[in-house]
Formats: sequence, structure tokens, C-alpha cells
Amino acid sequence: MKKGKIKGKYGYDVEVDIAFKDVNPEDYDILVISGGKGPEKMRLDKDALEITKHFFEKNKPVAAICHGPQVLVSAGVIKGRKATCWIGIRDDIIAAGALYEDSEVVIDGNFVSSRSPDDLYAFGREMIKLLK
Amino acid sequence: MKKGKIKGKYGYDVEVDIAFKDVNPEDYDILVISGGKGPEKMRLDKDALEITKHFFEKNKPVAAICHGPQVLVSAGVIKGRKATCWIGIRDDIIAAGALYEDSEVVIDGNFVSSRSPDDLYAFGREMIKLLK
Repeated sequence: MKKGKIKGKYGYDVEVDIAFKDVNPEDYDILVISGGKGPEKMRLDKDALEITKHFFEKNKPVAAICHGPQVLVSAGVIKGRKATCWIGIRDDIIAAGALYEDSEVVIDGNFVSSRSPDDLYAFGREMIKLLK
Repeated sequence: MKKGKIKGKYGYDVEVDIAFKDVNPEDYDILVISGGKGPEKMRLDKDALEITKHFFEKNKPVAAICHGPQVLVSAGVIKGRKATCWIGIRDDIIAAGALYEDSEVVIDGNFVSSRSPDDLYAFGREMIKLLK
């Protein structure tokens, strides 16, 4: 994943200010992994997986929604953790050892997850609590 | 999944002649699972999973490509089987116990799988061999 301008699903331009390879995860307080088609690419980026492992190893706040937990499967950090996700990947996180729950937001220590955009209010609420 | 007209990704109309719930898998010689966004929906259809289990239990021919193996993860039939898939779901089939190989086509008895549309020639060739 490179620095620079990228186009979102609905045509909006987004300025990416840093590439995964240039991120020092020590500088960040929370990791937020959104959904859509991105996680299937992010999970193939070894630097993104190293960043993800850092947050879990240091027990720092992590929030993942929809397809976001695909990255957690690839980083090998979801086993034994309470989590939810987009229903289409439910069986994948279960196969990877997650303790799946069908709730708008699932809280497991410093890790929160939600199922879909319909859950964004609860997801945002619990994510912010992690930073307090 | 219902009988009737559906629209494909590129706008083509497809006439679905039978719903999963009305399929008697005994009447069919091969199960072919294509990729794209379909498998994330098909894997949530209990009738589709029963059809899939029938083919594996009876050791009948199965061919899956791209995201198709997501259905095999949900049907619980991929553990211990040699397989390949779209690279974005590679870690999911590995978590589910598949013996992943990065090849244009992977043959494990009566089960063949491929990675992407670029592999279609090899996929079709081996699929047809299963029917001979």
C-alpha cells in the first residue's frame, strides 16, 4: 500500500499520508480496520500484519468491522478472542479460532468488533471508550 | 437462492432454472463452484451446504475456483484436502485445515481447485477429466 492519492468505492479521492512500511506502530494509540474489499489486500501486506501483531502483543486498542477481521486471521491474532464480523466471513473467523458472537458490537478487553455499517454507532461508541 | 432471472456482475441476465432447496444432488454428476461475490452468499444457504456435503461424502467430482472454496470452508469439507483459491482468502482455507498450494490447478482425488480467472484453462481441463 503506497502513499498518495487513491479513489474510494464511491469515487471520492483519499490522500494516503503514510504507507504501511513507513509506519512505526509505537507512534499510534489505536488500530482501526474497516471493511469492504480492502482487508483482502491489506492481509497480504506483511508490514500491515506486523503492525497488527504489535497492537495485539502490546494489548493496545484495536477495532475491526465487517471484513476487517480478515486481517486478524492472517496476522494470527484472533484465536481464542471474542469477536464478530460481516456474516459472509463468519465461518472463516470461527475456523481461525475466534469465539464468534452475533452482536452489534463485541468487546474483548482492548479489542472491539462489529458486523456491518448498521452497527457503526455502537462500534464508534466502544472504540472511543478504548481511548479514554 | 431463488429460481428466476438474476443479473450478473457485468449486467448479463441469467435464468436460474432451479433453487438450491429443490436440488436433489443424486441427480448431478459434478458440483462446480465459481468465484466472485457469490460464495459469501452461497455459504449462508443451508441447502447449498447440504448439496456440497453430499458431493464430498459420496466422493463425487467437485471443482471450485477463486472465492469458491469459501463454500467448502462453511460446509466443513476442506480440512486435510489439497486445495488452492483466490489469494485473498488463502489464509482462511489454511485456517480451516486445507493443505494450500500456489498452483494454477490443484488436484486431490475427485476435487480440483484453481486460483483465479487466469487459471481457467487448467481448471476446465482437469474438471472435464473428472467426468471421464
